[in-house]
This record gives sequence, C-alpha cells and structure tokens, in this order.
Amino acid sequence: MTYYIDDLKPGMSESLTKTVTERDVELFGEVSGDKNPVHFDEQYAKGTIFKGRIAHGMLTASVISAAIACKLPGPGTIYLGQHLRFRARVRPGETVRATVTVMEILPEKRQVRLATECPVGGKVVIEGDALVMPTSKFAWPDKPAVAGACDA
Amino acid sequence: MTYYIDDLKPGMSESLTKTVTERDVELFGEVSGDKNPVHFDEQYAKGTIFKGRIAHGMLTASVISAAIACKLPGPGTIYLGQHLRFRARVRPGETVRATVTVMEILPEKRQVRLATECPVGGKVVIEGDALVMPTSKFAWPDKPAVAGACDA
Repeated sequence: MTYYIDDLKPGMSESLTKTVTERDVELFGEVSGDKNPVHFDEQYAKGTIFKGRIAHGMLTASVISAAIACKLPGPGTIYLGQHLRFRARVRPGETVRATVTVMEILPEKRQVRLATECPVGGKVVIEGDALVMPTSKFAWPDKPAVAGACDA
Repeated sequence: MTYYIDDLKPGMSESLTKTVTERDVELFGEVSGDKNPVHFDEQYAKGTIFKGRIAHGMLTASVISAAIACKLPGPGTIYLGQHLRFRARVRPGETVRATVTVMEILPEKRQVRLATECPVGGKVVIEGDALVMPTSKFAWPDKPAVAGACDA
C-alpha cells in the first residue's frame, strides 16, 4: 500500500520496527566502508566514550528511510531530504522503532514534511525530519501493493 | 590516523570513494528493511520516474558517514548530526566520491561543521552538512592509527 499526497493529513503516523543484529552491523560495515573498531572490537570499544560496541548511526537512520519507503507515504515516494540529529548510541541487539509523522503538506510543490524519530525503548536515539514527494495518481493510478517490499 | 580539533582548519578536505555494487544494494535492503522493487526489480523500476533500478539514497549517504569516521576527522569522532539533500539517483555500479570539508570550528563546544557532498562523475547526487565532535587529546593522547578501519 502507498499513500497519495491527497490521502495524507498532518498527524498521520506509521512506524517500522527493526532489531539491529550483529549481522546488520557487519553488513553495514561492508556496504558503507566504515569498519571502525568501535563497531566491531568490544575490547577497543570499552576504552571509548561509548563503553562498548555501538551500531553505526547511519544504520539506525536507514530504518527511517525504510519506514518512509515502506509505510508512510510508502512505495513510489521520492526521498528529497533528511535531517538527522544523533542523540544516543544504539547497541547491537537493540530494537529501533522508526516513526514517521506527517507534519506539513506543501500541495503546490507536491511535497510533504515528515517528523522522523527513532526511539529505542523509551529513549529517542535519532530525531529529525524528512522532505518527500509522494507518488502521484498520474504515475500510479492503481496504487499497487508492492509484494514483499518491506518484510523487515 | 585521526585529527584532533586543534589540527583542523576551515577548507581542509578528504574524500572516500566507493563503487555501489549489486551486492551492496542487496545487503542494504536486508540491513534497512527496504526491499522496494525500485531497488531490486529492473522491469518494475523501468516503469517508474527513475527509468531503471536505483540504489537506496541512504546507502549513498552511508559513504559520507564512512568518510567522516575514516578520513576527516577520522576514528574516534562522535557524529552529532547530518543534513542530506538527495539531488539525483545513483545506479548500482556507479562510483560515489563522498567529500567532507571543514566549514566551521566551534571550539567552545568542541564541535566542527563539515560540508558533505557526493559527486558521481561530475554530478552531485547528495549535498548537505554534518556536525561532529572530533576525538580529544584527553581521550586519545597517542592518536592511534586504527588498522583496517577503512579498507573500502
């Protein structure tokens, strides 16, 4: 399911939940090129301000992008921008709940501003906002459900 | 190698170059939870505004985070924030050059603002800026080289 811009109203909200596994941290190191020992070497990471291994900040941010692409507005959305404030560390094994909420609709530009927040337990680890262009009736008159797009 | 805040001057710049492979797109789909067919199904993607498969925007953004973590300021840096403007699509197989440049040093906060830009060929696909806290002499008096941190 996807939302057209006309379907959206301020306050609408969706979440995508993902546990950041050891394997995710490993794969993200490969994909990004960031193999810093603060992510991979517990002994080393214990000597840093983080007092133990942490997941890459942009890995957690990736769950926000998946929430936008999969949930709200959903498949077909064009991602125009993202502001991220990294507020707290995420450890491998922790569960992130990326929540996106419609803040503002800019119909003349066909754009929507979303609040984007990632709590882990009760604590917000990333906050910020995104600018997106939802898909249009012109592009997708039938609002296709996209099977298997978001199995996280 | 890492840079302390005292080592940095406005205009200093470093880059990290990475080819976004088919495997990267696949792994990023797994890590983020975003398995939208615009990233995976060429037939489907041809029918979209992108006219073919594209890499996830946040995958390209991940190379910026690696450039910060690996090059400038380097290992030990704390990532506080990132603004991203997604300007153009990246196709699997294209090579991203994430470039970070010191814009402003805020010594009273021990923070540094970096311009962050990703050209692919001559075209900027992501632009924005980052806020970071470089590691300190107090935390790391010996400026350790971190072997294998950035083999991308």
